[in-house]
Amino acid sequence: MGEQGETNVKRMSLIVTKGTLDWAYPPFILATTAAAMGLEVSMFFTFYGLSLLKKKLDLAISPLGNPAMKMPMAGMHMAMPNIIAMLPGVGSLATGMMEGMIKRKGIASIEELRQMAIEADVSMVACQMTMDLFEFKREDLIDGPSLGGAASYIETATKADINLYI
Amino acid sequence: MGEQGETNVKRMSLIVTKGTLDWAYPPFILATTAAAMGLEVSMFFTFYGLSLLKKKLDLAISPLGNPAMKMPMAGMHMAMPNIIAMLPGVGSLATGMMEGMIKRKGIASIEELRQMAIEADVSMVACQMTMDLFEFKREDLIDGPSLGGAASYIETATKADINLYI
Amino acid sequence: MGEQGETNVKRMSLIVTKGTLDWAYPPFILATTAAAMGLEVSMFFTFYGLSLLKKKLDLAISPLGNPAMKMPMAGMHMAMPNIIAMLPGVGSLATGMMEGMIKRKGIASIEELRQMAIEADVSMVACQMTMDLFEFKREDLIDGPSLGGAASYIETATKADINLYI
Repeated sequence: MGEQGETNVKRMSLIVTKGTLDWAYPPFILATTAAAMGLEVSMFFTFYGLSLLKKKLDLAISPLGNPAMKMPMAGMHMAMPNIIAMLPGVGSLATGMMEGMIKRKGIASIEELRQMAIEADVSMVACQMTMDLFEFKREDLIDGPSLGGAASYIETATKADINLYI
Repeated sequence: MGEQGETNVKRMSLIVTKGTLDWAYPPFILATTAAAMGLEVSMFFTFYGLSLLKKKLDLAISPLGNPAMKMPMAGMHMAMPNIIAMLPGVGSLATGMMEGMIKRKGIASIEELRQMAIEADVSMVACQMTMDLFEFKREDLIDGPSLGGAASYIETATKADINLYI
Repeated sequence: MGEQGETNVKRMSLIVTKGTLDWAYPPFILATTAAAMGLEVSMFFTFYGLSLLKKKLDLAISPLGNPAMKMPMAGMHMAMPNIIAMLPGVGSLATGMMEGMIKRKGIASIEELRQMAIEADVSMVACQMTMDLFEFKREDLIDGPSLGGAASYIETATKADINLYI
């Protein structure tokens, strides 16, 4: 980015801390939308959010403990009772249901949105401390993201017009 | 709002993504407080947060998987063991306990805070994509909120002094 | 801080709403890092986050309902099945595992990070309404933090360059 553009271009900086299928959507939808609108976007992936940078995504949801997760079923919205949600296989079932819902509605997958973000020059940084803590290796992650720490995040955030912790 | 006021009025923009009874409080308390202080406030309701715009609220909490949810009981603070929290009816029991606590302390209900926000001219936008995904109909929601997407959120957020993702 | 510095010093303002061991890290790491970089930092502790100001911390995690919490084990990353995670003692076991991981990697404890934040003059405010709601007494909390409400938070946030809701 040229020095001259700095005062005009709007910037958005996201900290991405969650790693479930449902919470993977907000950061990538915001990032790709903002980039398409001409904002300069950076994403800092930390804690459970780091897994969104893995080459092979295996995202899941769990309705356990989230009574607000109500799936549309037979014209109603149903939350899953915890005593059922905790049974083996029910997490996968719920994940499959949500994946199906997303697909039927024509919404892109996380892999597709992530690729769109990369192509739109969204800057991605993987948190070094999280990599050490959870024992991720650089080759577990997709190419592209650089490694950085909280200081590099703060540096970026002080210059952003929109800061969000997701 | 007139063009002339734009440089002086402070603005707050919230993305509201959670739909449980406990997490419904922060956005509405922040919105009503900020509006009372003269800020221009906008709220974008998306994912599970969209349910906070339903005409008929049926908010619940679950202590499952949140060991930090400790209720004051007999002079102590007790977390509920997961093996109890997952039993049928215990989620409703915990919801009832929290509703009772809120009422005894004289704190407004979510319905009341939402009404206060509307009367204070807080701008509310319901996420169109979430409505499609979870099959909400416009008539399920209260009057007032407009429909919009991530682009309209970003547009608003670039002009706000306080941006929060809740 | 002198009046003259006000226009130059960057400011970060955090709302801290979570009280589990894992989610206690982001606010304190961000606060201590930003303070070390010369930013003026303030933290508003509310809801479950208030417990991070307790004299005696008893933080815990639960893998329940968070399929993204995968511990490194035997060279793999394993999520704990909900049916196991909900058993009595398994929450403590997972908490112990995470504490061990954190210690082995040489990462500071929350108590240490909190002390560092205090020594770096990070401003801490405990939410008065949360204290009333959950029946905390002032003497349950460490010395230092002042008491305040949403209005004092908003006042601070309007002046900050980085606002995050954690």
